[in-house]
Amino acid sequence: MSAIEQLREKLNEVSRLGQAAAVLDWDQQCYMPPGGGDARAEQSAVIQKVIHEKFTSDEVGELLETSASELNGASLDSDDAALIRITKMDFDRETKVPGALVAEQAKVTSLAHEVWVKARKEKDFKTFQPWLERIVDNCRQIAEHRGYKDHIYDALLEEFEAGTKTSEVERIFTDLRPSLVDLVQQIKDSPAKVDNSIMSREYPVEKQLEICNDLVKRIGFDFTNGRQDQAAHPFCTNFSNNDVRITTRFDAHWLPGSVFASMHEAGHAMYEQGSPDKFEGTTLSGGTSLGFHESQSRMWENQIGRSRAFIDYYFPVLKEKFPDSLGSVTAEQFYLAANKVAPSMIRVEADEVTYGLHIMLRFELEKLMIEGKVRFSDLPELWNTKMQEYLGITPKDDAEGVLQDVHWSSGILGYFPTYQLGNLISSQLWEKMQAAIPDIYSQIERGDFQAILEWLRSNVHQYGRKYLPGELIMRITGKAVDSGPYMGYLRTKYKDIYQLGD
Amino acid sequence: MSAIEQLREKLNEVSRLGQAAAVLDWDQQCYMPPGGGDARAEQSAVIQKVIHEKFTSDEVGELLETSASELNGASLDSDDAALIRITKMDFDRETKVPGALVAEQAKVTSLAHEVWVKARKEKDFKTFQPWLERIVDNCRQIAEHRGYKDHIYDALLEEFEAGTKTSEVERIFTDLRPSLVDLVQQIKDSPAKVDNSIMSREYPVEKQLEICNDLVKRIGFDFTNGRQDQAAHPFCTNFSNNDVRITTRFDAHWLPGSVFASMHEAGHAMYEQGSPDKFEGTTLSGGTSLGFHESQSRMWENQIGRSRAFIDYYFPVLKEKFPDSLGSVTAEQFYLAANKVAPSMIRVEADEVTYGLHIMLRFELEKLMIEGKVRFSDLPELWNTKMQEYLGITPKDDAEGVLQDVHWSSGILGYFPTYQLGNLISSQLWEKMQAAIPDIYSQIERGDFQAILEWLRSNVHQYGRKYLPGELIMRITGKAVDSGPYMGYLRTKYKDIYQLGD
Repeated sequence: MSAIEQLREKLNEVSRLGQAAAVLDWDQQCYMPPGGGDARAEQSAVIQKVIHEKFTSDEVGELLETSASELNGASLDSDDAALIRITKMDFDRETKVPGALVAEQAKVTSLAHEVWVKARKEKDFKTFQPWLERIVDNCRQIAEHRGYKDHIYDALLEEFEAGTKTSEVERIFTDLRPSLVDLVQQIKDSPAKVDNSIMSREYPVEKQLEICNDLVKRIGFDFTNGRQDQAAHPFCTNFSNNDVRITTRFDAHWLPGSVFASMHEAGHAMYEQGSPDKFEGTTLSGGTSLGFHESQSRMWENQIGRSRAFIDYYFPVLKEKFPDSLGSVTAEQFYLAANKVAPSMIRVEADEVTYGLHIMLRFELEKLMIEGKVRFSDLPELWNTKMQEYLGITPKDDAEGVLQDVHWSSGILGYFPTYQLGNLISSQLWEKMQAAIPDIYSQIERGDFQAILEWLRSNVHQYGRKYLPGELIMRITGKAVDSGPYMGYLRTKYKDIYQLGD
Repeated sequence: MSAIEQLREKLNEVSRLGQAAAVLDWDQQCYMPPGGGDARAEQSAVIQKVIHEKFTSDEVGELLETSASELNGASLDSDDAALIRITKMDFDRETKVPGALVAEQAKVTSLAHEVWVKARKEKDFKTFQPWLERIVDNCRQIAEHRGYKDHIYDALLEEFEAGTKTSEVERIFTDLRPSLVDLVQQIKDSPAKVDNSIMSREYPVEKQLEICNDLVKRIGFDFTNGRQDQAAHPFCTNFSNNDVRITTRFDAHWLPGSVFASMHEAGHAMYEQGSPDKFEGTTLSGGTSLGFHESQSRMWENQIGRSRAFIDYYFPVLKEKFPDSLGSVTAEQFYLAANKVAPSMIRVEADEVTYGLHIMLRFELEKLMIEGKVRFSDLPELWNTKMQEYLGITPKDDAEGVLQDVHWSSGILGYFPTYQLGNLISSQLWEKMQAAIPDIYSQIERGDFQAILEWLRSNVHQYGRKYLPGELIMRITGKAVDSGPYMGYLRTKYKDIYQLGD
């Protein structure tokens, strides 16, 4: 066997164990009985340990070296070359950090999570603060071990958006922020108001479930190779490209909470279902980055799902399913209600205009924390000040302020920016796709999503992780990630909805 | 760390990986979409490989030796001594067989399974025959590697009913067979007939589901530490003593198919839920043998579930749930219908009187096969002859004859006898329990199952795998496995139902 064949065999084991770990996690969130938690934690920990041991072994290191030399002469654009490059990148990231530090962070975050849950419940940042300090300190050490050229935050971002630099994110966000703040202000000042109270009418859960299954099937989610379940939080996971699971949640008095979440998760899922068979069992399967993943989910949720064309197409189905609540509502009223913009405290409930500002605030605080440029005791105040500055509202307590997200308590820093990068990428792709499919909105209006999915398959999905996100967006659009198309999309859409001036 | 502490650490890893593998299998049978099969097979294979490597490592072998010598002076009845003994037994069984042979058998059975499915469909033993020959030949080699004193079949039985000998099973079955054949004949000849057509009326699946959940909860299945789902075949699996899953299946025109299967699986499940915390993550957790496991499921299904006392208690609930089908039925009619005896071709559908004869037939054929005393081409004929001899009926084709069970195609020989041993043990325990709880049937009649479950917990469940099945039955009843109580139970019950003479 050649070195690369041996490498593939090793990676297959690692990859299959990772898929198994994902099954355990899915079950935990969907079906596990309350008593199962302790044993599940042990099962996951053992699998993760085996994965880490197998992936970071000297043998993999040597096979990587030998494979690279065997490659001699092969095109750098070949799948083999990509496999070696991406695996080397993952291998370096995982081997550079001492096991003891990884274990220490796992232990701290496991305890910190409980503290955070309690602190959020009691709206009291102070009890969580020392834990956050330890977590950030560990993150800083992890980043130092990984190494970086320009900015320590690069080493954290790298895990979620490989190849993307802090300076690039800063440039993009700095450019975008005033435009977003201005658009939010214009909408606030507009005499046109949107009423979304129809969304809070009675929507029986069983019927929402039927709608969500119907909806994702229509747009292209493949139930032969996936399924949808109910969970406390909507998410997408996969155990191969042929077994992709999504979840949604139901509130009998909030229809968008399930419907648009389902489209969002189906967007993630179709990316995974589109990952090519040839990459299965290797480091190249799946999506190239969190940002690109989010571009897929956001596109199906927003550019498509919340478009007038889509609502014209699908509203009759909703109306038939919920005659009591929607019988006297028009598609246009539903369209407006689905696109109401209003500054709010909680990121996960934010509309597509204000969402980016929630992200920027977090990115700025994370950077200050990791640079050591903020006193942790000042974080709640700083959070609230920025909320006032960007969105014109101030949290009444830490629970709807600095304590709202789970990420930091889990040791996840460098993740937040990818949500907004995803929004930007979705608009860059959408612009390109519109050029390729000029009658895109007519197709959506008649429920034909085939050309859209095919475009995504051939431009994005088929490459798996072969190209870094920055390379992929360049291949597709000829440009780096850029906020222009996103702002253009928002301005056009909301100018119409809120009757704004030029 | 002492050797035994190190050993416990190793065993914890092996045990947790085993639990993870069980989650994958559960998902495959309950929720996995059709496309997920190939990846799931790879995931399971990799986990099993890691389990095998970890468990059969030289390190575990050395830790076992050192632990045993450290034990010096400790009571042989201690948990540590039991851990070493049982682990050594498992370790020897797994290490004695060459990896290549294990892999060969895994490959053959994987292919043979498909052949068997097709052969059964086409009712044609001949295409499956060469595969069965290979499988049995591998089983013979495996048995030789494992080693045995008296009979080669001992080495196969050992895996499922440790410590139990072929000669013992033969003695028990030889004793039991004529009594069973005679009882079946008496029932056939009796002028009293039982009509169970009420069981085939309309029983909507959603309502059966509610009943099955209600039923197992009432008898003691703990939903905080378990759940019930739907699957093609009823089964019980567990991912710790605090996460025990059971499944059932529904046929809108066959009520016993779900109700008694649920009680059966709940019996298995309560054994697992009763496995003590101190044995979690070791080789001592769970049930001591398949026979003992089956004693639990059969007791809840038959001695309890199909008793007049239980049906008097629960029939009003059924009647209220299914007024159309059971409105004019009495509890007594339901009791009789639930206990109809009639020779039939398919083991899994057999009543509790004829069931044992199905098992004996299989045991006899397995023994002949492994001894090399039968021509494989003669198996269908031999099967049919024995069916006629024991049950007075002859299969019309191989599908309802020699091809009906999945076991042989999966390489599982030595398993069948444990079903009937379980029936015998269930009656031995039941006899003992009745002595301890004289008003047991009054308790059942008022829906009080606490004393029963407590008796099982303290006499059976709390020991996990600490004692071998033969030791455990001796501790509880002072006797070895014996068919007397079972025949006594059947005679008393069916004498009444079929108005038989003495």
